[in-house]
Amino acid sequence: MSYTINSGTGAVAASTRERVEEAIRVLGYRPNAAARTLKIGSTKMFGVVVPDSSNPFFAQLGRALEDAAAERGYALIVVNVEGSPDGFGPSIRNLASRQVDGIISAAGISLSALAALSESGTPTVLVNQFEAVEGLPAIGPDLYGGARAAMEHLLWHGHQTIAFVGQAGPNDLRERGWRDALAAAGLPAGPIAAGAYTREGGYHAGQELLAGDDIPTAIFASSDQQGVGVLRALHEANVSVPDQMAIVSFDGSPESEYSWPALTTLEQPVRTMAVDALEKLISPTESSSYTLYPTRLIVRQSCGCGR
Amino acid sequence: MSYTINSGTGAVAASTRERVEEAIRVLGYRPNAAARTLKIGSTKMFGVVVPDSSNPFFAQLGRALEDAAAERGYALIVVNVEGSPDGFGPSIRNLASRQVDGIISAAGISLSALAALSESGTPTVLVNQFEAVEGLPAIGPDLYGGARAAMEHLLWHGHQTIAFVGQAGPNDLRERGWRDALAAAGLPAGPIAAGAYTREGGYHAGQELLAGDDIPTAIFASSDQQGVGVLRALHEANVSVPDQMAIVSFDGSPESEYSWPALTTLEQPVRTMAVDALEKLISPTESSSYTLYPTRLIVRQSCGCGR
Repeated sequence: MSYTINSGTGAVAASTRERVEEAIRVLGYRPNAAARTLKIGSTKMFGVVVPDSSNPFFAQLGRALEDAAAERGYALIVVNVEGSPDGFGPSIRNLASRQVDGIISAAGISLSALAALSESGTPTVLVNQFEAVEGLPAIGPDLYGGARAAMEHLLWHGHQTIAFVGQAGPNDLRERGWRDALAAAGLPAGPIAAGAYTREGGYHAGQELLAGDDIPTAIFASSDQQGVGVLRALHEANVSVPDQMAIVSFDGSPESEYSWPALTTLEQPVRTMAVDALEKLISPTESSSYTLYPTRLIVRQSCGCGR
Repeated sequence: MSYTINSGTGAVAASTRERVEEAIRVLGYRPNAAARTLKIGSTKMFGVVVPDSSNPFFAQLGRALEDAAAERGYALIVVNVEGSPDGFGPSIRNLASRQVDGIISAAGISLSALAALSESGTPTVLVNQFEAVEGLPAIGPDLYGGARAAMEHLLWHGHQTIAFVGQAGPNDLRERGWRDALAAAGLPAGPIAAGAYTREGGYHAGQELLAGDDIPTAIFASSDQQGVGVLRALHEANVSVPDQMAIVSFDGSPESEYSWPALTTLEQPVRTMAVDALEKLISPTESSSYTLYPTRLIVRQSCGCGR
């Protein structure tokens, strides 16, 4: 159809051409985005699934994706799935009907939700993904390597009791990196406090660590948001950072630079990952590829440097 | 067309009906969202224009809009315009071609950009808007009332030299509220430091105030982000908050609760404004209405309460 409408040269038989022209006249063809979708099957839109677009990490990722998409002529529909236990809220059902050209999922949605996204035949890329997934391209930060780097830095500062603040449990790659680094240094595992990847989750985890029997001298937190929450718990308990307690967190969000003291953190290459995720949708390659992106230690004050 | 395709009863003359059916057959009619757009002229999508979706205030507003839109069966395309001087970046040009059912602009984009949005005939609502605009419905927080409330609180604490951190200049309603409150208390205007509505803008403004001749005992900051930046400048200069310097800021963002000390702030009713903005697009009323939303003082530690 595209050939007939756009060029009008003689490659299409005259009778077909007349019927198409009549169809266009009758149905009121307009060269707009909706018509273009019918014609070439592209909406030039991608869906983006996140847990919570107001979480600073996903807000930063969303902005990076939008910039990269706009440069390539694509628009994004961002939907939030936090709060719907199986990942199937009204947002994602809504998204499923919109014939987007592809989906970027940064939410750890359930396997059934993922299967439904794949069944629809829409190209899908998983970002913020921590392991390979059969049949879907995925990218994610090197959590294990980042955790090892964070721990090496705290061990270099001389800490021997280093706590872990996380959420996901023993298979989490940050927790494994924390545990392996301590074992490699011949040290016992420190205390663990579980909390959501939020300021509030870190706040409660920090309170829990201070109330425990084995009070650490340093804390590795799985997200900057948790790091900010831990800082509040320490401030309220008059624990001086970094003198009495050092902290290293994860993400490299803008907020981490403005906490007090400023958080030493593992920066994720958010803009690079955003561009690469879009390119994987625009120019698909092998379907099950999994790419790890190295993180970078940004040394500020919370670790004990720069005092 | 909708009548013909959906019901197929005899109200349409047979010859027209045959031509439509032929057209549908030839053009490959599929009952999907794109076809629905051509048929009834609705995409069930709204465009949202913001300066920067990764700024925590706009991230919070975007999330509130997405939740309200999803409940009503709409999806959002959020575009960023920060960095394009006239408000016409690739994002907004991209948006203009997508036949969205309406546009919510939370960005102070230029009059020419606004005019172009209106010319296209797409219903538009301005949010985060600080004065009425001819021909467009608009809503916004009561900046003047909020500033007066912030100042009454700082005056009640006994401060006499209160600085203002803002961006927009003497016509800004927060600056006018700050000035009028001081005048009503028989006090001279304090120092003013201008900076962007960001952490960095607040940081530089805070440094400027500390380097000035007329060092205040309290600061009213126009945004929480600026408040967070001011806090960093004060911490670095070993100025104790609130003992040596009190702060009240504006917005009521989640981050303000986790700064150190926690910021006393004027909370904007973000979710209420988001729902009302969507309802104005879905059920349009008078075109030039302007609605002000009261803010609420959240008293925490940075003002000097709760010590």
